[in-house]
Amino acid sequence: MEIKRVFNFSAGPSTMPVEVLEAAAKEMTDFEGSGMGVMEMSHRSKVYLGIYSATEAKFREVFNIPDNYKVIFMQGGATLQFSAIPLNLMTKNGKADYVLTGSFSTNAQKEAVKYGQINVAFSGKDEGFTRIPAQDELKLDPEADYVHYCDNNTIFGTKFNYIPETGNVPLICDMSSCILSEEVDISKFGMIYAGAQKNMGPAGMAVIIIREDLLQDPQEKTPVLLNYKVLAEKESMYNTPNTWGIYVLGHMMDWVKKEGGIAAMNKKAKERAGLLYDAIDNSNGYYVNPNDKDSRSIMNVVFRLPNEELEAKFAKESVEAGMTNLKGHRSVGGIRASMYNALPLEAVEHLVDFMKKFQENNPQ
Amino acid sequence: MEIKRVFNFSAGPSTMPVEVLEAAAKEMTDFEGSGMGVMEMSHRSKVYLGIYSATEAKFREVFNIPDNYKVIFMQGGATLQFSAIPLNLMTKNGKADYVLTGSFSTNAQKEAVKYGQINVAFSGKDEGFTRIPAQDELKLDPEADYVHYCDNNTIFGTKFNYIPETGNVPLICDMSSCILSEEVDISKFGMIYAGAQKNMGPAGMAVIIIREDLLQDPQEKTPVLLNYKVLAEKESMYNTPNTWGIYVLGHMMDWVKKEGGIAAMNKKAKERAGLLYDAIDNSNGYYVNPNDKDSRSIMNVVFRLPNEELEAKFAKESVEAGMTNLKGHRSVGGIRASMYNALPLEAVEHLVDFMKKFQENNPQ
Repeated sequence: MEIKRVFNFSAGPSTMPVEVLEAAAKEMTDFEGSGMGVMEMSHRSKVYLGIYSATEAKFREVFNIPDNYKVIFMQGGATLQFSAIPLNLMTKNGKADYVLTGSFSTNAQKEAVKYGQINVAFSGKDEGFTRIPAQDELKLDPEADYVHYCDNNTIFGTKFNYIPETGNVPLICDMSSCILSEEVDISKFGMIYAGAQKNMGPAGMAVIIIREDLLQDPQEKTPVLLNYKVLAEKESMYNTPNTWGIYVLGHMMDWVKKEGGIAAMNKKAKERAGLLYDAIDNSNGYYVNPNDKDSRSIMNVVFRLPNEELEAKFAKESVEAGMTNLKGHRSVGGIRASMYNALPLEAVEHLVDFMKKFQENNPQ
Repeated sequence: MEIKRVFNFSAGPSTMPVEVLEAAAKEMTDFEGSGMGVMEMSHRSKVYLGIYSATEAKFREVFNIPDNYKVIFMQGGATLQFSAIPLNLMTKNGKADYVLTGSFSTNAQKEAVKYGQINVAFSGKDEGFTRIPAQDELKLDPEADYVHYCDNNTIFGTKFNYIPETGNVPLICDMSSCILSEEVDISKFGMIYAGAQKNMGPAGMAVIIIREDLLQDPQEKTPVLLNYKVLAEKESMYNTPNTWGIYVLGHMMDWVKKEGGIAAMNKKAKERAGLLYDAIDNSNGYYVNPNDKDSRSIMNVVFRLPNEELEAKFAKESVEAGMTNLKGHRSVGGIRASMYNALPLEAVEHLVDFMKKFQENNPQ
């Protein structure tokens, strides 16, 4: 039976490389002659610890992580970090700066106010989150325990094209929807974190990259599984981790390496996004991306049609044309194409063709 | 290539039914003609919401869960519940009773003291956790916000053979290592929880069954992802859940149903445990189970050999004989055979044969 794969533009969880899926399927009942599948392995067994170490090593290599940073695999996705970050890091002066450029950074800030005094260093809310602030727009507090921002805004389709300068204040970045899509100078950050379900594998895990000197005692009532210091000391195994998620991440890293590493991922991402933004910009205003050109994301591209009826029709017909999840987030409407590392260029070509035909068939 | 499966006596994650693994492998790149695998699906897509609802319905049916209980799928395993329980439920009088019968109940109590006043209603520590207390040994506080206990102690191999009577005080039970191995009158409990990685599928998830009236506002600084009320309202999707774990749980429930439900699981568990305890009890004291007979677990069977050298030899040779993870927990030593629902009787027969030969070959 031939399997027909859809072009999956989901914002996450999202499309994965077929060869990663096939490798996982092949090893399901017997990983490398161990006589068992990865889901069945004791997390403290030699065979699983081998998978764990190899995954961490591959991830460090691919993302070029300096030795003075710990990698922690945690459950709970990026959202649990919205609590863990203030609990662990707002411990010196009890205050922090948050840069609000979309839904998730706003959610992070709403959670952080439970644990200390939050300064909103910038908010794009009144402008509909259509742009990223310039460095000199950030009202930073030199006594903040950290500065938090979200590099790529999944819902609004914007992205920072620079790393904010925060002096001696540690910079914390949510890279959930852009991690591994561009090379990053990690030494500029105190901590980077990301939910796995976009460029790293299945949902159910967040990856934390944290500078060792930030591993200090957290606030008093911090749940033990949110304590970075404990988790780093226990190599992510204070309790049973998401063993399957870590394993699949290993296969994802093999794939990224084989494809040419992050530089190659970035090149492909720019090709995909370039193709789609060109189609939007050359549609004589039929398709409109509402964001500042300097703030455009190459992972999540949003656009509007002349009216909501046409948007609904577009979403419906795109499904019939073999594409899925092009409907924009329920909070903002419109159309959104999420194009993570595993999305083939062919999918975007197919979308762009569809857009042209749709415009012809549905003149304004 | 023929796949040789080991007999996997791991305490968790542990052996799963081959047909569940094969079903998951088969659907890896295309779930039921959707053109994508389950790991790639948006958690809010129609196809995934179908998987979610079906899994919950099957779980409710198999475990016979009354309608006035909510089921929540959370990340973080049972250990995160050690924090979530006091944060959510120690909100009336700020105190709770903990029954200590092993390592995990003790860990739960250690975490709970961060959030209120804990009364140790019983501790088996001085007796080496070799028995379960009788009802009249529990020093319960009628003003406790809840009573917490662990039904089956994975490390020490003991189990409650009754449900504690706690009057109007809600009873909270950690069933991580015995859930779905016997029929349970859920109406006796305020809340039951369990890590998934023993009888429910892969690690990375806990299942919470909570009586609706207990869904109240939690303590002030509760991380939002630990808030039962929010998670119940959002049907476990405040953020992206462990979509894969929920999916595999669905396959596990299909398997349990096909095999005859929990009654059949219990019958098989008793057969396995009976065979092994008989082998221990009939070994003329060569193999010794240290626990009270009334407190014996049918999921985790522990035993000692005449000395540690023989135990090390036993563990080593058992691996050569096609069995794995028989070495006892590092904190207590000895031998432990964990025999969850998916372990075939054949594995225990193989172990018992091995034990007889080992005893003959290594006389005391």
